[in-house]
Amino acid sequence: MEQNYKMIISYDGTRYHGWEHKKGLDTIQGKLNQVLSRLCNKDISVIGAGRTDAGVHAKAMVANAVLDITLSEMELRDYMNRYLPEDIAVEEVRIASERFHARHKAVGKTYCYSCFYGPVKPIFRRKYVTMLEYEPDIELMRQAAAYLVGKHDFASFCGNPKMKKSTVREIYSITIEARKGFLYMRFRGTGFLQNMVRIMVGTLLEVGNGKRKPEEMRGILEGKSRSLAGPTAPPQGLCLEEVEY
Amino acid sequence: MEQNYKMIISYDGTRYHGWEHKKGLDTIQGKLNQVLSRLCNKDISVIGAGRTDAGVHAKAMVANAVLDITLSEMELRDYMNRYLPEDIAVEEVRIASERFHARHKAVGKTYCYSCFYGPVKPIFRRKYVTMLEYEPDIELMRQAAAYLVGKHDFASFCGNPKMKKSTVREIYSITIEARKGFLYMRFRGTGFLQNMVRIMVGTLLEVGNGKRKPEEMRGILEGKSRSLAGPTAPPQGLCLEEVEY
Repeated sequence: MEQNYKMIISYDGTRYHGWEHKKGLDTIQGKLNQVLSRLCNKDISVIGAGRTDAGVHAKAMVANAVLDITLSEMELRDYMNRYLPEDIAVEEVRIASERFHARHKAVGKTYCYSCFYGPVKPIFRRKYVTMLEYEPDIELMRQAAAYLVGKHDFASFCGNPKMKKSTVREIYSITIEARKGFLYMRFRGTGFLQNMVRIMVGTLLEVGNGKRKPEEMRGILEGKSRSLAGPTAPPQGLCLEEVEY
Repeated sequence: MEQNYKMIISYDGTRYHGWEHKKGLDTIQGKLNQVLSRLCNKDISVIGAGRTDAGVHAKAMVANAVLDITLSEMELRDYMNRYLPEDIAVEEVRIASERFHARHKAVGKTYCYSCFYGPVKPIFRRKYVTMLEYEPDIELMRQAAAYLVGKHDFASFCGNPKMKKSTVREIYSITIEARKGFLYMRFRGTGFLQNMVRIMVGTLLEVGNGKRKPEEMRGILEGKSRSLAGPTAPPQGLCLEEVEY
Protein backbone atom coordinates (compact mmCIF):
# COMPACT_ATOMS: atom_id res chain seq x y z
CA MET A 1 0.00 0.00 0.00
CA GLU A 2 1.30 3.43 -0.88
CA GLN A 3 1.98 5.69 2.06
CA ASN A 4 3.38 9.15 2.47
CA TYR A 5 6.57 9.12 4.53
CA LYS A 6 7.81 12.24 6.29
CA MET A 7 11.55 12.20 6.91
CA ILE A 8 13.86 14.40 8.95
CA ILE A 9 17.27 14.55 7.30
CA SER A 10 20.59 15.89 8.56
CA TYR A 11 23.61 16.46 6.37
CA ASP A 12 27.04 17.92 6.23
CA GLY A 13 26.76 19.87 2.98
CA THR A 14 30.50 20.44 2.56
CA ARG A 15 31.01 18.19 -0.45
CA TYR A 16 27.57 18.57 -2.06
CA HIS A 17 26.24 20.78 -4.82
CA GLY A 18 23.29 21.67 -2.61
CA TRP A 19 20.04 19.91 -1.90
CA GLU A 20 18.45 19.87 -5.34
CA HIS A 21 19.04 16.96 -7.70
CA LYS A 22 21.35 17.88 -10.58
CA LYS A 23 22.29 15.24 -13.08
CA GLY A 24 25.88 14.05 -12.72
CA LEU A 25 26.52 16.06 -9.54
CA ASP A 26 26.45 14.96 -5.92
CA THR A 27 23.40 16.45 -4.22
CA ILE A 28 21.52 15.52 -1.06
CA GLN A 29 18.23 14.98 -2.88
CA GLY A 30 20.05 12.92 -5.50
CA LYS A 31 21.50 10.59 -2.84
CA LEU A 32 18.12 10.15 -1.16
CA ASN A 33 16.39 9.49 -4.49
CA GLN A 34 19.02 6.90 -5.34
CA VAL A 35 18.60 4.95 -2.11
CA LEU A 36 14.79 5.04 -2.24
CA SER A 37 14.64 4.21 -5.95
CA ARG A 38 16.79 1.17 -5.30
CA LEU A 39 14.55 0.11 -2.40
CA CYS A 40 11.34 0.54 -4.40
CA ASN A 41 12.74 -0.65 -7.69
CA LYS A 42 11.34 2.40 -9.47
CA ASP A 43 12.15 6.10 -9.76
CA ILE A 44 11.43 7.94 -6.53
CA SER A 45 11.91 11.65 -6.06
CA VAL A 46 11.74 13.03 -2.54
CA ILE A 47 10.20 16.44 -1.93
CA GLY A 48 12.26 18.72 0.30
CA ALA A 49 11.01 21.60 2.44
CA GLY A 50 13.45 23.86 0.64
CA ARG A 51 16.60 23.90 -1.42
CA THR A 52 19.80 24.53 0.49
CA ASP A 53 22.74 25.93 -1.50
CA ALA A 54 25.99 24.12 -2.21
CA GLY A 55 27.99 23.80 1.01
CA VAL A 56 25.09 24.56 3.36
CA HIS A 57 24.30 22.08 6.15
CA ALA A 58 21.08 20.86 7.78
CA LYS A 59 20.27 19.40 11.16
CA ALA A 60 16.62 18.89 10.34
CA MET A 61 15.64 19.24 6.70
CA VAL A 62 12.17 17.78 6.19
CA ALA A 63 11.30 15.72 3.13
CA ASN A 64 8.50 13.44 2.07
CA ALA A 65 8.03 10.68 -0.45
CA VAL A 66 5.15 8.37 -1.35
CA LEU A 67 6.41 4.80 -1.17
CA ASP A 68 4.88 1.35 -1.52
CA ILE A 69 6.95 -0.67 0.93
CA THR A 70 6.50 -3.17 3.74
CA LEU A 71 9.19 -1.74 6.05
CA SER A 72 8.18 -0.10 9.32
CA GLU A 73 9.13 3.55 9.94
CA MET A 74 12.20 2.50 11.92
CA GLU A 75 13.19 -0.12 9.38
CA LEU A 76 12.99 2.46 6.59
CA ARG A 77 15.15 4.86 8.61
CA ASP A 78 17.73 2.14 9.26
CA TYR A 79 17.68 0.93 5.65
CA MET A 80 18.32 4.45 4.38
CA ASN A 81 21.10 5.09 6.88
CA ARG A 82 22.78 1.85 5.86
CA TYR A 83 23.00 2.95 2.22
CA LEU A 84 23.38 6.73 2.52
CA PRO A 85 26.91 8.21 2.57
CA GLU A 86 28.45 9.01 5.95
CA ASP A 87 27.60 12.71 5.69
CA ILE A 88 23.83 12.28 5.26
CA ALA A 89 21.56 10.74 7.90
CA VAL A 90 17.83 10.10 8.23
CA GLU A 91 17.09 11.17 11.80
CA GLU A 92 13.46 10.14 11.83
CA VAL A 93 10.76 8.63 9.61
CA ARG A 94 7.02 8.99 10.24
CA ILE A 95 4.03 7.98 8.17
CA ALA A 96 2.19 11.22 7.39
CA SER A 97 -1.22 12.10 6.01
CA GLU A 98 -1.44 11.74 2.24
CA ARG A 99 -1.94 15.51 2.10
CA PHE A 100 1.40 16.23 3.76
CA HIS A 101 3.79 18.03 1.39
CA ALA A 102 7.20 18.98 2.79
CA ARG A 103 7.41 22.21 0.79
CA HIS A 104 3.80 23.44 0.46
CA LYS A 105 2.84 22.73 4.05
CA ALA A 106 5.89 24.36 5.65
CA VAL A 107 4.90 27.46 7.64
CA GLY A 108 8.24 28.37 9.15
CA LYS A 109 11.94 27.70 8.90
CA THR A 110 14.85 28.42 11.19
CA TYR A 111 18.38 28.86 9.90
CA CYS A 112 21.43 29.39 12.06
CA TYR A 113 24.56 31.08 10.74
CA SER A 114 27.75 30.51 12.77
CA CYS A 115 30.90 32.60 12.70
CA PHE A 116 34.07 32.55 14.74
CA TYR A 117 36.09 35.64 15.64
CA GLY A 118 38.18 34.33 18.55
CA PRO A 119 41.96 34.26 18.42
CA VAL A 120 42.44 30.54 17.73
CA LYS A 121 40.53 28.76 14.94
CA PRO A 122 38.23 26.01 16.29
CA ILE A 123 39.69 23.11 14.32
CA PHE A 124 37.04 20.52 15.17
CA ARG A 125 34.25 22.80 13.92
CA ARG A 126 36.16 24.45 11.10
CA LYS A 127 33.83 23.15 8.39
CA TYR A 128 30.73 24.59 10.07
CA VAL A 129 31.74 28.15 10.83
CA THR A 130 32.82 31.19 8.87
CA MET A 131 35.98 32.81 10.18
CA LEU A 132 35.92 36.55 10.85
CA GLU A 133 39.02 38.71 11.00
CA TYR A 134 37.42 41.09 13.52
CA GLU A 135 35.25 41.04 16.59
CA PRO A 136 31.81 42.17 15.43
CA ASP A 137 29.77 44.74 17.36
CA ILE A 138 26.82 42.59 18.41
CA GLU A 139 24.74 45.51 19.67
CA LEU A 140 24.88 47.32 16.31
CA MET A 141 24.08 44.08 14.49
CA ARG A 142 21.00 43.60 16.66
CA GLN A 143 19.82 47.13 15.89
CA ALA A 144 20.27 46.46 12.18
CA ALA A 145 18.53 43.09 12.38
CA ALA A 146 15.47 44.71 13.96
CA TYR A 147 14.78 46.50 10.64
CA LEU A 148 14.54 43.16 8.87
CA VAL A 149 12.07 41.53 11.24
CA GLY A 150 8.46 41.62 10.01
CA LYS A 151 6.83 41.38 6.60
CA HIS A 152 8.87 43.10 3.91
CA ASP A 153 9.76 42.94 0.25
CA PHE A 154 13.18 41.35 0.42
CA ALA A 155 14.08 41.93 -3.24
CA SER A 156 17.39 43.50 -2.13
CA PHE A 157 18.22 40.25 -0.37
CA CYS A 158 17.36 37.90 -3.21
CA GLY A 159 20.20 36.11 -4.99
CA ASN A 160 18.10 35.23 -8.01
CA PRO A 161 18.13 38.18 -10.47
CA LYS A 162 15.42 36.52 -12.59
CA MET A 163 13.00 36.05 -9.70
CA LYS A 164 9.51 36.56 -11.11
CA LYS A 165 7.39 35.60 -8.11
CA SER A 166 6.79 37.72 -5.04
CA THR A 167 9.85 38.59 -3.00
CA VAL A 168 7.72 39.42 0.04
CA ARG A 169 8.54 37.30 3.07
CA GLU A 170 7.96 37.53 6.79
CA ILE A 171 10.75 37.17 9.31
CA TYR A 172 9.44 36.25 12.77
CA SER A 173 12.67 36.79 14.64
CA ILE A 174 16.41 37.28 14.34
CA THR A 175 18.51 36.51 17.39
CA ILE A 176 22.20 37.28 17.56
CA GLU A 177 24.36 35.78 20.28
CA ALA A 178 28.08 35.65 21.00
CA ARG A 179 29.61 32.86 23.07
CA LYS A 180 33.30 32.03 23.52
CA GLY A 181 34.42 33.63 20.28
CA PHE A 182 31.51 32.20 18.29
CA LEU A 183 28.79 34.39 16.80
CA TYR A 184 25.40 32.77 16.15
CA MET A 185 22.73 34.45 14.04
CA ARG A 186 19.40 32.67 14.04
CA PHE A 187 16.67 33.58 11.52
CA ARG A 188 13.12 32.32 11.87
CA GLY A 189 10.61 33.16 9.15
CA THR A 190 7.91 31.95 6.80
CA GLY A 191 10.47 31.03 4.22
CA PHE A 192 13.49 32.57 2.59
CA LEU A 193 14.43 33.62 -0.94
CA GLN A 194 17.47 32.23 -2.70
CA ASN A 195 20.65 33.20 -0.76
CA MET A 196 18.46 35.48 1.42
CA VAL A 197 19.88 34.37 4.76
CA ARG A 198 23.45 34.59 3.49
CA ILE A 199 22.89 38.08 2.04
CA MET A 200 21.31 39.24 5.31
CA VAL A 201 24.32 37.80 7.17
CA GLY A 202 26.76 39.49 4.78
CA THR A 203 24.98 42.80 5.31
CA LEU A 204 24.66 42.45 9.09
CA LEU A 205 28.37 41.62 9.31
CA GLU A 206 29.15 44.87 7.50
CA VAL A 207 27.25 46.60 10.28
CA GLY A 208 29.12 44.56 12.89
CA ASN A 209 32.38 45.56 11.22
CA GLY A 210 31.54 49.27 11.22
CA LYS A 211 31.25 49.53 7.43
CA ARG A 212 27.53 50.34 7.56
CA LYS A 213 25.16 51.91 10.04
CA PRO A 214 22.14 49.98 11.37
CA GLU A 215 19.77 52.65 9.95
CA GLU A 216 20.92 51.83 6.41
CA MET A 217 18.85 48.66 6.52
CA ARG A 218 15.66 50.64 5.92
CA GLY A 219 17.00 52.13 2.69
CA ILE A 220 18.30 48.77 1.51
CA LEU A 221 14.85 47.21 1.95
CA GLU A 222 13.09 50.15 0.30
CA GLY A 223 15.50 50.27 -2.64
CA LYS A 224 14.57 46.73 -3.74
CA SER A 225 17.85 46.14 -5.52
CA ARG A 226 20.38 43.43 -4.78
CA SER A 227 23.22 45.89 -5.34
CA LEU A 228 22.25 47.82 -2.19
CA ALA A 229 22.81 44.92 0.22
CA GLY A 230 26.11 43.42 1.35
CA PRO A 231 27.90 40.38 -0.04
CA THR A 232 26.55 36.84 0.15
CA ALA A 233 28.21 35.27 3.20
CA PRO A 234 29.99 31.95 2.52
CA PRO A 235 27.85 28.80 2.72
CA GLN A 236 29.71 26.73 5.33
CA GLY A 237 28.45 28.80 8.28
CA LEU A 238 24.81 28.15 7.40
CA CYS A 239 22.66 25.35 8.77
CA LEU A 240 18.93 24.65 8.40
CA GLU A 241 17.85 23.91 11.96
CA GLU A 242 14.11 23.47 11.84
CA VAL A 243 11.09 23.39 9.54
CA GLU A 244 7.68 24.06 11.08
CA TYR A 245 4.31 22.78 9.86
CA MET B 1 67.90 35.56 23.21
CA GLU B 2 67.01 31.89 23.27
CA GLN B 3 63.91 31.03 25.26
CA ASN B 4 61.98 27.87 25.90
CA TYR B 5 58.42 28.11 24.58
CA LYS B 6 55.67 25.85 25.90
CA MET B 7 52.83 25.37 23.42
CA ILE B 8 49.38 23.82 23.72
CA ILE B 9 48.40 22.29 20.39
CA SER B 10 45.08 20.95 19.14
CA TYR B 11 44.67 18.90 16.00
CA ASP B 12 42.27 16.82 13.99
CA GLY B 13 44.48 13.79 13.36
CA THR B 14 42.28 12.34 10.59
CA ARG B 15 44.66 12.93 7.70
CA TYR B 16 47.98 12.64 9.59
CA HIS B 17 50.41 9.78 10.09
CA GLY B 18 50.46 10.54 13.79
CA TRP B 19 52.36 13.07 15.85
CA GLU B 20 55.92 12.00 15.21
CA HIS B 21 57.91 13.44 12.34
CA LYS B 22 58.41 10.92 9.51
CA LYS B 23 60.23 11.98 6.40
CA GLY B 24 57.92 12.42 3.42
CA LEU B 25 54.73 11.89 5.45
CA ASP B 26 52.30 14.41 6.89
CA THR B 27 52.66 14.45 10.68
CA ILE B 28 51.72 17.01 13.31
CA GLN B 29 55.26 17.39 14.59
CA GLY B 30 56.50 17.70 11.01
CA LYS B 31 54.07 20.58 10.32
CA LEU B 32 55.07 22.39 13.52
CA ASN B 33 58.78 21.91 12.80
CA GLN B 34 58.28 23.30 9.29
CA VAL B 35 56.56 26.47 10.45
CA LEU B 36 59.05 27.13 13.24
CA SER B 37 62.09 26.32 11.08
CA ARG B 38 60.87 28.83 8.53
CA LEU B 39 60.37 31.45 11.23
CA CYS B 40 63.80 30.87 12.78
CA ASN B 41 65.63 30.24 9.53
CA LYS B 42 67.20 27.08 10.94
CA ASP B 43 66.12 23.53 11.75
CA ILE B 44 63.78 23.45 14.75
CA SER B 45 62.33 20.26 16.21
CA VAL B 46 59.54 20.58 18.76
CA ILE B 47 59.37 18.14 21.67
CA GLY B 48 55.93 16.66 22.25
CA ALA B 49 54.52 15.30 25.51
CA GLY B 50 53.82 12.04 23.72
CA ARG B 51 53.36 10.47 20.32
CA THR B 52 49.78 10.07 19.21
CA ASP B 53 49.08 7.39 16.58
CA ALA B 54 47.92 8.01 13.04
CA GLY B 55 44.31 9.23 13.07
CA VAL B 56 44.27 10.18 16.78
CA HIS B 57 43.21 13.71 17.75
CA ALA B 58 44.30 16.13 20.46
CA LYS B 59 42.62 19.02 22.21
CA ALA B 60 45.67 19.89 24.28
CA MET B 61 48.92 18.23 23.27
CA VAL B 62 51.81 20.03 24.95
CA ALA B 63 55.05 20.72 23.15
CA ASN B 64 58.11 22.86 23.72
CA ALA B 65 60.87 24.32 21.60
CA VAL B 66 63.85 26.56 22.28
CA LEU B 67 63.66 29.53 19.92
CA ASP B 68 65.61 32.72 19.40
CA ILE B 69 62.89 35.12 18.27
CA THR B 70 61.62 38.60 18.97
CA LEU B 71 57.90 37.78 18.82
CA SER B 72 55.76 37.94 21.95
CA GLU B 73 53.93 34.79 23.12
CA MET B 74 50.73 35.92 21.41
CA GLU B 75 52.53 36.94 18.25
CA LEU B 76 54.19 33.53 18.06
CA ARG B 77 50.80 31.82 18.51
CA ASP B 78 49.24 33.96 15.78
CA TYR B 79 52.21 33.50 13.43
CA MET B 80 52.02 29.73 13.80
CA ASN B 81 48.25 29.65 13.30
CA ARG B 82 48.61 31.70 10.14
CA TYR B 83 50.96 29.15 8.56
CA LEU B 84 49.70 25.88 10.04
CA PRO B 85 47.10 23.87 8.08
CA GLU B 86 43.43 24.26 9.01
CA ASP B 87 43.41 21.07 11.10
CA ILE B 88 46.22 22.06 13.49
CA ALA B 89 46.02 25.01 15.90
CA VAL B 90 48.27 26.48 18.55
CA GLU B 91 45.88 27.22 21.42
CA GLU B 92 48.39 28.89 23.69
CA VAL B 93 52.07 29.84 23.89
CA ARG B 94 53.92 30.57 27.15
CA ILE B 95 57.58 31.19 27.87
CA ALA B 96 58.66 28.38 30.20
CA SER B 97 61.66 27.73 32.38
CA GLU B 98 64.67 26.48 30.44
CA ARG B 99 64.31 23.20 32.34
CA PHE B 100 60.78 22.58 31.03
CA HIS B 101 60.65 19.48 28.79
CA ALA B 102 57.23 18.53 27.40
CA ARG B 103 57.91 14.79 27.59
CA HIS B 104 60.20 14.32 30.60
CA LYS B 105 58.30 16.66 32.89
CA ALA B 106 54.83 15.29 32.14
CA VAL B 107 53.33 13.60 35.22
CA GLY B 108 49.91 12.76 33.92
CA LYS B 109 47.87 12.45 30.74
CA THR B 110 44.16 12.21 30.06
CA TYR B 111 42.79 10.55 26.96
CA CYS B 112 39.12 10.36 26.03
CA TYR B 113 37.77 7.66 23.75
CA SER B 114 34.34 8.36 22.19
CA CYS B 115 31.95 5.83 20.70
CA PHE B 116 28.43 6.08 19.37
CA TYR B 117 25.83 3.33 19.65
CA GLY B 118 22.61 5.29 19.05
CA PRO B 119 20.31 4.52 16.14
CA VAL B 120 21.31 7.39 13.84
CA LYS B 121 24.97 8.18 13.09
CA PRO B 122 25.99 11.65 14.31
CA ILE B 123 27.14 13.07 10.98
CA PHE B 124 28.73 16.27 12.30
CA ARG B 125 30.95 14.31 14.70
CA ARG B 126 31.50 11.26 12.51
CA LYS B 127 35.26 11.73 12.28
CA TYR B 128 35.70 11.83 16.07
CA VAL B 129 33.73 8.79 17.23
CA THR B 130 33.88 5.06 16.69
CA MET B 131 30.55 3.52 15.71
CA LEU B 132 29.31 0.54 17.69
CA GLU B 133 26.78 -1.95 16.38
CA TYR B 134 25.43 -2.66 19.88
CA GLU B 135 24.53 -0.85 23.08
CA PRO B 136 27.36 -1.64 25.51
CA ASP B 137 26.68 -2.65 29.11
CA ILE B 138 28.23 0.29 30.94
CA GLU B 139 28.02 -1.31 34.38
CA LEU B 140 30.04 -4.35 33.30
CA MET B 141 32.57 -2.11 31.57
CA ARG B 142 33.02 -0.10 34.77
CA GLN B 143 33.61 -3.30 36.74
CA ALA B 144 36.22 -4.39 34.20
CA ALA B 145 37.87 -0.96 34.17
CA ALA B 146 38.32 -1.10 37.95
CA TYR B 147 40.84 -3.93 37.50
CA LEU B 148 43.01 -1.69 35.33
CA VAL B 149 43.16 1.26 37.73
CA GLY B 150 46.34 1.42 39.80
CA LYS B 151 49.98 0.51 39.16
CA HIS B 152 50.32 -2.58 36.96
CA ASP B 153 52.51 -4.17 34.37
CA PHE B 154 50.51 -3.41 31.21
CA ALA B 155 52.56 -5.67 28.91
CA SER B 156 49.31 -7.27 27.68
CA PHE B 157 48.12 -3.82 26.60
CA CYS B 158 51.30 -2.78 24.77
CA GLY B 159 51.17 -2.56 20.98
CA ASN B 160 54.95 -2.62 20.59
CA PRO B 161 56.14 -6.25 20.56
CA LYS B 162 59.77 -5.14 20.78
CA MET B 163 59.26 -2.99 23.87
CA LYS B 164 62.43 -3.32 25.94
CA LYS B 165 61.77 -0.76 28.67
CA SER B 166 59.42 -1.22 31.62
CA THR B 167 55.77 -1.75 30.77
CA VAL B 168 54.67 -0.75 34.26
CA ARG B 169 52.36 2.24 34.31
CA GLU B 170 49.92 3.74 36.77
CA ILE B 171 46.35 4.57 35.86
CA TYR B 172 44.80 7.10 38.23
CA SER B 173 41.24 6.75 37.02
CA ILE B 174 38.97 5.42 34.29
CA THR B 175 35.53 6.96 33.98
CA ILE B 176 32.90 5.59 31.65
CA GLU B 177 29.81 7.61 30.83
CA ALA B 178 26.95 7.26 28.38
CA ARG B 179 25.02 10.28 27.12
CA LYS B 180 22.51 10.45 24.27
CA GLY B 181 23.88 7.42 22.45
CA PHE B 182 27.50 8.44 22.97
CA LEU B 183 29.88 6.44 25.15
CA TYR B 184 32.85 8.30 26.64
CA MET B 185 35.77 6.47 28.25
CA ARG B 186 38.27 8.73 29.96
CA PHE B 187 41.68 7.43 31.06
CA ARG B 188 43.94 9.41 33.35
CA GLY B 189 47.37 8.04 34.19
CA THR B 190 51.10 8.67 34.45
CA GLY B 191 51.58 7.85 30.82
CA PHE B 192 50.55 5.18 28.38
CA LEU B 193 52.36 2.56 26.31
CA GLN B 194 52.02 2.42 22.54
CA ASN B 195 48.37 1.71 21.61
CA MET B 196 47.65 1.09 25.30
CA VAL B 197 44.50 3.19 25.53
CA ARG B 198 43.13 1.71 22.31
CA ILE B 199 43.83 -1.86 23.45
CA MET B 200 42.16 -1.16 26.80
CA VAL B 201 39.16 0.27 24.93
CA GLY B 202 39.04 -2.74 22.58
CA THR B 203 39.09 -5.07 25.60
CA LEU B 204 36.55 -3.09 27.63
CA LEU B 205 34.21 -3.02 24.65
CA GLU B 206 34.37 -6.82 24.50
CA VAL B 207 33.16 -6.78 28.10
CA GLY B 208 30.45 -4.26 27.19
CA ASN B 209 29.41 -6.51 24.35
CA GLY B 210 29.19 -9.62 26.54
CA LYS B 211 32.13 -11.40 24.91
CA ARG B 212 34.23 -11.28 28.08
CA LYS B 213 33.56 -11.11 31.80
CA PRO B 214 34.92 -8.21 33.90
CA GLU B 215 36.91 -10.68 36.04
CA GLU B 216 38.99 -11.71 33.02
CA MET B 217 40.89 -8.44 33.26
CA ARG B 218 42.92 -9.76 36.17
CA GLY B 219 44.18 -12.73 34.14
CA ILE B 220 44.93 -10.54 31.13
CA LEU B 221 47.12 -8.26 33.25
CA GLU B 222 48.86 -11.19 34.96
CA GLY B 223 49.48 -13.06 31.68
CA LYS B 224 51.61 -10.21 30.31
CA SER B 225 50.97 -11.14 26.70
CA ARG B 226 49.40 -8.95 24.04
CA SER B 227 47.48 -11.95 22.69
CA LEU B 228 45.35 -12.11 25.86
CA ALA B 229 43.80 -8.65 25.47
CA GLY B 230 41.18 -7.54 22.97
CA PRO B 231 41.70 -5.81 19.62
CA THR B 232 43.16 -2.32 19.22
CA ALA B 233 40.16 0.01 18.90
CA PRO B 234 40.21 2.28 15.81
CA PRO B 235 42.09 5.59 16.18
CA GLN B 236 39.41 8.12 15.28
CA GLY B 237 37.59 7.83 18.62
CA LEU B 238 40.69 8.78 20.58
CA CYS B 239 41.63 12.27 21.71
CA LEU B 240 44.42 13.49 24.00
CA GLU B 241 42.62 15.87 26.34
CA GLU B 242 45.19 17.00 28.87
CA VAL B 243 48.83 16.74 29.88
CA GLU B 244 49.72 17.48 33.50
CA TYR B 245 53.05 18.80 34.81
